[in-house]
Amino acid sequence: MEYAIGVDIGGTKIHFAVVDREGRIVDSHRVPSEAQLGADHVMSLVLQGVDTMIQRMPSGSKASGIGVGSAGQINFVTGTVEYAGSQLPGWTGTPITRILKERYLLPAYADNDVNAIAVAEQMYGAGRGLDSFIVVALGTGIGGAIVEAGRVVRGAKGCAGELGHVSVDFNGPICENCGNNGCVELYASGSGIARLGREVLAGAGGIVPWQPDSRAITQAWLQGERYASQVMDIAIRALAAAIAGYIHMCNPQAVILGGGVAEAGAPFLNALDQEIKSRTSTAVRSAYRLLPAYVGNDAGVIGAAAQVWLYGNG
Amino acid sequence: MEYAIGVDIGGTKIHFAVVDREGRIVDSHRVPSEAQLGADHVMSLVLQGVDTMIQRMPSGSKASGIGVGSAGQINFVTGTVEYAGSQLPGWTGTPITRILKERYLLPAYADNDVNAIAVAEQMYGAGRGLDSFIVVALGTGIGGAIVEAGRVVRGAKGCAGELGHVSVDFNGPICENCGNNGCVELYASGSGIARLGREVLAGAGGIVPWQPDSRAITQAWLQGERYASQVMDIAIRALAAAIAGYIHMCNPQAVILGGGVAEAGAPFLNALDQEIKSRTSTAVRSAYRLLPAYVGNDAGVIGAAAQVWLYGNG
Repeated sequence: MEYAIGVDIGGTKIHFAVVDREGRIVDSHRVPSEAQLGADHVMSLVLQGVDTMIQRMPSGSKASGIGVGSAGQINFVTGTVEYAGSQLPGWTGTPITRILKERYLLPAYADNDVNAIAVAEQMYGAGRGLDSFIVVALGTGIGGAIVEAGRVVRGAKGCAGELGHVSVDFNGPICENCGNNGCVELYASGSGIARLGREVLAGAGGIVPWQPDSRAITQAWLQGERYASQVMDIAIRALAAAIAGYIHMCNPQAVILGGGVAEAGAPFLNALDQEIKSRTSTAVRSAYRLLPAYVGNDAGVIGAAAQVWLYGNG
Repeated sequence: MEYAIGVDIGGTKIHFAVVDREGRIVDSHRVPSEAQLGADHVMSLVLQGVDTMIQRMPSGSKASGIGVGSAGQINFVTGTVEYAGSQLPGWTGTPITRILKERYLLPAYADNDVNAIAVAEQMYGAGRGLDSFIVVALGTGIGGAIVEAGRVVRGAKGCAGELGHVSVDFNGPICENCGNNGCVELYASGSGIARLGREVLAGAGGIVPWQPDSRAITQAWLQGERYASQVMDIAIRALAAAIAGYIHMCNPQAVILGGGVAEAGAPFLNALDQEIKSRTSTAVRSAYRLLPAYVGNDAGVIGAAAQVWLYGNG
């Protein structure tokens, strides 16, 4: 049997898996990223983790290659980290694929973590059979990936798809990450929803007894609590305005929604879709569907591994 | 000599040209579109115009094909009008390339007019040698085109690149064209700047003695008039916020600016670029340049014709 080894590198943890051609995980483990200890340390954890995966592979089976998805902006062509922020200090400039190829003498690929999710959805999930779709990952921030004519849009340096840094209010609060005003990430990511929650509760007057996180707010919204309705109304309108913009720009067949915030489920998806529909012109509106991500929490590591099948000769 | 025939179809006029492989116009003429007389009439004008171009071609020369750029949303694959609004009533559904192929027995191509401008810039202008760039056409509205990995991004139905319908204020005025709030077109197109002009002058109190158009406003801005500074400050910040979003989404090597509003020249370009730079993250900011469109007013018809060389076998 042939397998690919997938590595999903985030600011908190690194996820390793042995994945087959059908996208099934046959073995996996996670370790803390310990990102504050620097890039060399993170890379040594990556190598240890890959070693472990190779040692534990069933006898008679073969690793066909290694695929990495990483937080930050990754240059797919060179396999190097173009830019990584405070999530992975010092990670900028790390030649991920060169190090892997030299050590393991195997084909190696590296891409942004959300691009890896897009590969997973394209090969095994909601994007199967689609030529043009957009992945919106609603996590602590908002990540994204654009697939056009069957391939991931990369741009000049592999940094395309930063969907969270599309402004929905040019007079809004300044985004610390990019300097623009009113980035959609400030309204509809986990941290954005928590920020709106603090504002709404503070606006209600008096001392704020608690500061709910986005999970608490979406739960309260599902239960009809008034403060949460105010927050989620803003978040959904801002996100719908941004997604309508993506749709006018890219005319996709689908917008695939993943990440923690999207776990609020059908009520969230339906409210959002209604808002998007009212904000798009006829021609592009009739072309797209809003879909929940299919592959789930392991999409990052499965898509990382699937690069070996998608881009390799195997 | 081989030539391509270009046809640029707008709501006001239709522009015909015989164009050589180097993008030089050797013959051309324009007729009014008479769009209110309906799609059949417009198509008959197109055929008459092409007839004229063929009859006037120098003896011994050959038409290698016909390329059309049209207002509205054009499905490049089928050569049919996917959607056209009030600019070209009834134009939706017109099978442009089928009609041309049947009549002239020549290869024929049809695309959105801004996509045609992108082809002209890619082959002969500011986009030469670039793999990924964005064209922003600041006319009465805002049109756009996205080139990624060397090819025009089309999306599901050939409607991609509607850059004017990216929202920069999700609580802003409603856009009559698409239903979204605060589309950038409402701030930085010719009609948007005129709208802001009316608002600023009305806000100054009393009776508004005149209603300047965008050309008058940009002229007044270049001369340092105060009302015009207020208007252009809003227009430039809104446009920069939108372009910063395009840049985060597509990580282009260049943003190419054309259209009437862009004719305000270097002061406009410089002010805009400074705003964009303050609104983009490091990795994407270092990759892009803001460039004026190179090919000029004939870019539409030159790009329309150039499709024959770009997509044909010739």
